[in-house]
Amino acid sequence: MTFIEKLSAAWSANNSLLCVGLDPDVARFPLHLQGQPDAIFTFCKEIIDATAATACAFKPQIAYFSAIRAEDQLEAICDYLRKNYPQIPIVMDAKRGDIGATAEQYAREAFERYGADAVTVSPYMGFDSVAPYLEWKDRGAIVLCRTSNAGGSDLQFLTVDGVPLYQHVARLVADKWNTNGQCALVVGATFPQELAQVRSIIGEMPLLVPGIGAQGGDIQATVNAGKTANGTGMMINSSRAILYAKPDQAAGEDYAQAARRVAEETRDAINRFRI
Amino acid sequence: MTFIEKLSAAWSANNSLLCVGLDPDVARFPLHLQGQPDAIFTFCKEIIDATAATACAFKPQIAYFSAIRAEDQLEAICDYLRKNYPQIPIVMDAKRGDIGATAEQYAREAFERYGADAVTVSPYMGFDSVAPYLEWKDRGAIVLCRTSNAGGSDLQFLTVDGVPLYQHVARLVADKWNTNGQCALVVGATFPQELAQVRSIIGEMPLLVPGIGAQGGDIQATVNAGKTANGTGMMINSSRAILYAKPDQAAGEDYAQAARRVAEETRDAINRFRI
Repeated sequence: MTFIEKLSAAWSANNSLLCVGLDPDVARFPLHLQGQPDAIFTFCKEIIDATAATACAFKPQIAYFSAIRAEDQLEAICDYLRKNYPQIPIVMDAKRGDIGATAEQYAREAFERYGADAVTVSPYMGFDSVAPYLEWKDRGAIVLCRTSNAGGSDLQFLTVDGVPLYQHVARLVADKWNTNGQCALVVGATFPQELAQVRSIIGEMPLLVPGIGAQGGDIQATVNAGKTANGTGMMINSSRAILYAKPDQAAGEDYAQAARRVAEETRDAINRFRI
Repeated sequence: MTFIEKLSAAWSANNSLLCVGLDPDVARFPLHLQGQPDAIFTFCKEIIDATAATACAFKPQIAYFSAIRAEDQLEAICDYLRKNYPQIPIVMDAKRGDIGATAEQYAREAFERYGADAVTVSPYMGFDSVAPYLEWKDRGAIVLCRTSNAGGSDLQFLTVDGVPLYQHVARLVADKWNTNGQCALVVGATFPQELAQVRSIIGEMPLLVPGIGAQGGDIQATVNAGKTANGTGMMINSSRAILYAKPDQAAGEDYAQAARRVAEETRDAINRFRI
């Protein structure tokens, strides 16, 4: 089963476009986990168990592991996901981008070492920096297009042939790079009009959409702008709003329960605007 | 001492613009190292000892370590460099690029975990994706500008306001991002005219120049195009041509001796055109 097939099946099976981002910031963990040797694995495992029924994908952010020598815990999390939730794709958020010989190494990292179904990549170095990921025929490459941060405009909004660079990237990927149907694009929820522009360029290609939740994107506008004709086509990501959902006043609720509640609310809020 | 000061001192002390790239591909190691548990560390240590007198920088390519769970050996290599050759800067080639909160984690990875002096980064997500590296005031951020691979043209050669995108990036970094003098740019040796264009835009800012050696760039054209008025301003990188220098016919020479010979020849070839 390819990444795109697995994603489509997860959209249907869980009736959800929600992607749960795993950005484990130890400083924000519950006190009882802090200082434990496997705190990151335990935290993510409990979040995964609490939210798997509401998710179409899990997206670990590799920087949170590599900053603190926790690659072994990321391996354990990916193993846990593949064994217990094999129907839910793993998107490794790594934003890699390098020449072919090096990209082959990064592809091994994402697909062989961690067993991810897809990896995020940068388009700046061009097609031959993306092609090595596409050699893994059952995996996906999710190319940065229009990002949700303020500085995203610095390059992505420059005008090329009368259109912003990000639209040029969307067209390049749709027309030339996606020959085997393995590509998707990253487009932030913070710019719904631009999301709609990208959707009009790329047809049914999936979108990874960060920027709701902690980053403040509007769910109704996002879904209306980005969905495909059958009401799917998006992995709408929320990380911090789910992982750190437990408010101080909800003393009777643990962090995983709180994460489940917010994940369900987010899935439902998305579903209200899908059809 | 800042990254730029350390680099300038190394240019002078070793009379060299040669950057030695550490891309350890175990399949190309000498037979007696293959299968050894610390083969990567041993190989890189011997290359480092053989070439340190001829180098202005060492540049480990992180993908070669992360693909095969060898982060511990990269840590050991960086420790070895800092203890034994503290005067030579370490450039972590990672080409990171992500939003601010994540970029902070990647900066910790490069600067705290590995103790690198500088890290390569992608400009695609804009200034706020580069700024977290610049918070480390004694370290450097080396921004991708014009890369040496064929696909580099896909985006970098698109026309923005009448000039190619890579020149726009050079101007952005020189005029706006480099407020504290911590930035450098990556410009490939395979396009000397474009290297000259970038030099005319950025003044004295250092350049990391891949593409000589195995990638085929011409040394004379590269040095003429990229040097500053005092004959420095560049880290001219060679990786595979040095690491895997031992030809089959040179049976009496070991791989580290062969690496030293090629590093010296490359340094000398560069120096012929510096003044």
